[in-house]
Amino acid sequence: MAELEQEDLRKRLSQGSAADVRHAIREGRWTGRTHGLAHGHVHANLAILPENMALDFMRFCQRNPSPCPVLDVTDTGDPEFRQVAPGSDVRRDLSGYCVYREGVLVDEPSDITDIWQDDLVAFAMGCSLSFDAVLQENSLRVAHLEKPGGRIAVYTSGIECVPAGPFQGPMVVSLRPIPNDQVVRVAATTARYPAIHGAPVHIGDPAEIGIHDTQAVDWGAPPEIGPDDTPMFWGCGVTPQAVAMAAKLPLMITHKTGHMLMTDLLVKDL
Amino acid sequence: MAELEQEDLRKRLSQGSAADVRHAIREGRWTGRTHGLAHGHVHANLAILPENMALDFMRFCQRNPSPCPVLDVTDTGDPEFRQVAPGSDVRRDLSGYCVYREGVLVDEPSDITDIWQDDLVAFAMGCSLSFDAVLQENSLRVAHLEKPGGRIAVYTSGIECVPAGPFQGPMVVSLRPIPNDQVVRVAATTARYPAIHGAPVHIGDPAEIGIHDTQAVDWGAPPEIGPDDTPMFWGCGVTPQAVAMAAKLPLMITHKTGHMLMTDLLVKDL
Repeated sequence: MAELEQEDLRKRLSQGSAADVRHAIREGRWTGRTHGLAHGHVHANLAILPENMALDFMRFCQRNPSPCPVLDVTDTGDPEFRQVAPGSDVRRDLSGYCVYREGVLVDEPSDITDIWQDDLVAFAMGCSLSFDAVLQENSLRVAHLEKPGGRIAVYTSGIECVPAGPFQGPMVVSLRPIPNDQVVRVAATTARYPAIHGAPVHIGDPAEIGIHDTQAVDWGAPPEIGPDDTPMFWGCGVTPQAVAMAAKLPLMITHKTGHMLMTDLLVKDL
Repeated sequence: MAELEQEDLRKRLSQGSAADVRHAIREGRWTGRTHGLAHGHVHANLAILPENMALDFMRFCQRNPSPCPVLDVTDTGDPEFRQVAPGSDVRRDLSGYCVYREGVLVDEPSDITDIWQDDLVAFAMGCSLSFDAVLQENSLRVAHLEKPGGRIAVYTSGIECVPAGPFQGPMVVSLRPIPNDQVVRVAATTARYPAIHGAPVHIGDPAEIGIHDTQAVDWGAPPEIGPDDTPMFWGCGVTPQAVAMAAKLPLMITHKTGHMLMTDLLVKDL
């Protein structure tokens, strides 16, 4: 019975506004992943850091816009994303968080109100789920969504990010196998969306960017690359998390995989 | 004789690299404005602030990308723009600076080495000189460049910027009178260059954005708007300066009008 109710709620939220989803999460009515909810809206990656790390983190994002496309930055201590999600409360409006202390995952709560600090700054960054929606709407193939689970292949590449303060390390990239005859269109289409990772960072031989076995993914699921497919790679939102973890910040809070910040931005308006 | 030498140097620098121009300035060989130098390269606005204001300023730029398109941000205390001008020294590579203390212009030196502080952060922001070059290369009319002096009309508009910390106030905009039959092309062309102000913020009646007398400019020279012209407005790089002055920062240093930071970026690569 509860499952049926949840399925009904999912259907309604899939056609709802981003605010509808945020409220359903805040009120505890929705606790699952956000994939497919608030159709047409930009889903965002979340990173929350103490203010004394925020300037360096923002410089890192400015220098590495492909993996770290910043959509909004809160005022220090303010839990509301006033630009991309007016009325939001970033402490309660995501259905899952990861809390890292000194680079170690210490908790995965569904609410961070009790650990919120007045010196925290939250960053919303464009996410590739929105990106996949763009491809689908342009009748382009998104292979990983055709498989159960729908998980994309993600790797630590050999491309070094441009460092900023304590933030440095390799770029994490996602791989999409694209039919050869769609490569040009996919490159051109995605280049128009810099706010959700934009143009590919590499097209072709994975070894050229330090990926020697595409079946050995670092995150997600191994890809199926057909004989008529070309591997295409994009900067991935895992990058800032990986880099911030490596920097062993005293505190960092991110969204939990698949539990995104729902923004009022529309993909078609990007 | 000295004039002839300067004219000769201008000709050589106009076809030179941005680094050539920076070195000529650093060595005292070029002391003039930078308009027309290092053809094809992006000229940038400069703003230098103490680190304790830099996060708010960066948030301000993130929230107001049209007037404040950030191209590069230095590490704290580092005088080199490592992304857009490798090898640069921001303390010596511009031919004119404005030094503001508590919001008041106190000096206009040609070198700021002696007042440099280890807590300063420098911002390079896209500038509309590069923007005019784009229009000209696309055979679009740039009326103010046809007049002696070549100064554009600039106004404080009624559009409020999105505030960040102490940074708040109206958006400063530039006006270009565009022949009616070029309005669509100019809008579409400039929209492709978000790094140098991008799409217009307003097209048509100046009163709609609080400008009631276009002859009463706040900066630059009054425009000539012909009967077959449409006024088009863009966010202007004077905005962050005006806003930072109003915030009465203890210290802010900017480029002097017309004395821009020359970057290695090519306009065609933006």
